[in-house]
Amino acid sequence: MSVAPADHGQTAPLAIICGSGALPFVVADAAIKGGRKVVLFALRGFADGERLAGYPHHWMGFGQFGRFCRIARAAGCREVVMIGGLVRPNRLMIIPDLVALRFIPEVFRAYRGGDDHLLSGIARIFEQLGFRFVGAHEIAPELLVPEGIVGSRSPTAEDRADIVHGLNFIEAAGLFDVGQSVVVIGHHIVAVEAAEGTDGMLARIADLRRTKRITAPVGTGVVVKAPKPRQDRRFDLPTIGPRTIEGVADAGLAGIAVVAGEVLIAEPQQAAIAADRANIFMVGVPRQGEPA
Amino acid sequence: MSVAPADHGQTAPLAIICGSGALPFVVADAAIKGGRKVVLFALRGFADGERLAGYPHHWMGFGQFGRFCRIARAAGCREVVMIGGLVRPNRLMIIPDLVALRFIPEVFRAYRGGDDHLLSGIARIFEQLGFRFVGAHEIAPELLVPEGIVGSRSPTAEDRADIVHGLNFIEAAGLFDVGQSVVVIGHHIVAVEAAEGTDGMLARIADLRRTKRITAPVGTGVVVKAPKPRQDRRFDLPTIGPRTIEGVADAGLAGIAVVAGEVLIAEPQQAAIAADRANIFMVGVPRQGEPA
Repeated sequence: MSVAPADHGQTAPLAIICGSGALPFVVADAAIKGGRKVVLFALRGFADGERLAGYPHHWMGFGQFGRFCRIARAAGCREVVMIGGLVRPNRLMIIPDLVALRFIPEVFRAYRGGDDHLLSGIARIFEQLGFRFVGAHEIAPELLVPEGIVGSRSPTAEDRADIVHGLNFIEAAGLFDVGQSVVVIGHHIVAVEAAEGTDGMLARIADLRRTKRITAPVGTGVVVKAPKPRQDRRFDLPTIGPRTIEGVADAGLAGIAVVAGEVLIAEPQQAAIAADRANIFMVGVPRQGEPA
Repeated sequence: MSVAPADHGQTAPLAIICGSGALPFVVADAAIKGGRKVVLFALRGFADGERLAGYPHHWMGFGQFGRFCRIARAAGCREVVMIGGLVRPNRLMIIPDLVALRFIPEVFRAYRGGDDHLLSGIARIFEQLGFRFVGAHEIAPELLVPEGIVGSRSPTAEDRADIVHGLNFIEAAGLFDVGQSVVVIGHHIVAVEAAEGTDGMLARIADLRRTKRITAPVGTGVVVKAPKPRQDRRFDLPTIGPRTIEGVADAGLAGIAVVAGEVLIAEPQQAAIAADRANIFMVGVPRQGEPA
């Protein structure tokens, strides 16, 4: 007796909730290339309106669960990807529609904690509404930084030691839902990322060098980026791109290390070219901390 | 048979190595009030030249161990306090004199790590030269923040929960010699202090509010400050003052909590007045995390 494989919705159109930046469109293109239809839900204030024009899309605000459900169900969507830049919205910025009102207590509970906690809470609401969250990397695995050197420069032995130190710190800090990235110079942790984001943290390093609060030679030190240990890989995987490379160079660091297979890269070719041009290394390393 | 009590140098003149700010002079005054002579060693580029005029003092650069030893020994000093603001000097900024040359390997080893590691290394060198380090708070215990409310506003139950979360994080991060202070809003860690210092971190929070990267209501959230668990209490105790209070207010936080008996306050009266005027709380809490 043969049993038909369960359909979890992988063949139905994919709903993509779009934050800012290029990633939502990279994911949409990958899904389309794989023969799948997509419906983009553009978050007002974040999604790139110009690039949306080429895709079936609908605008939505935070808290419009009802609107999302109606349109996504009508389109036959069962799987949802949430991807792109987002700023943690103020509770008051969320204007709930009728469906969302049911979930107000869940949303408030989700707010009492870090970003992971908030996103997991939101995901649970979508699941109660009958949708399944999938990671952007499940749709477009080519977006994950591979293990090994990207570009042509390699980390030195000293850089590798700093990378290991940074990975260990991220592991420890992650239990508090904080610290997706960290800057280490000569075994000394000089910056920890929290609400300011990676770009903000790198700009701070550049600033501390300018004002001589950091006096270590330019071209030493690394930024290490990894998902927090408890982070739900289905959304909010850390992301790097050409802008990150620029930030690393401006911060006067030797390079950037990310956990291989757990960090997204928006435009890999451009990032590699940018790294070579800035003479910094970019490397994917295993989580346990031994760089490739 | 009676034995004379050992003289560890507590009656000899006190050598005070002076960084920036008012604290070196507060410590000097406390020592003088206690009937002790002082000799101030003003670090070039940091110590306040104007205020020095009233005290016996000598200027010195980083790395002038020989000059320090010669003068301090001639003055009969055996105990040394190192106090006031300092920026981690570049290795190249240290111009060693003849005595210091002997310790070059130790200095370089001390540099491979966080600030505690660096300071402990420096302290060991002084000890090899026959001096004993004492904490500023041993000379002027009135500088330590006591347990309980300073000023008149108290933390709410929500603030207290955030304080406990912050203390727990500092405990964990401190094993990596980082994170003397942290900002927590609604159980969410939004900033971790590293090379930028507490003032820099608080300015960042103000900035993230202005740019709507932090959208939590003004008047919520706390900054928590504590020595790192491995920090050598003899130097580099965390310090707060009127400028910290100003930073807390500008960051839109509800208040500041510090570990009682382990954080120095430069001008307690002015700080209490500033806190009341800004309508923020200031509280000394036990290390285990149950706020008073």
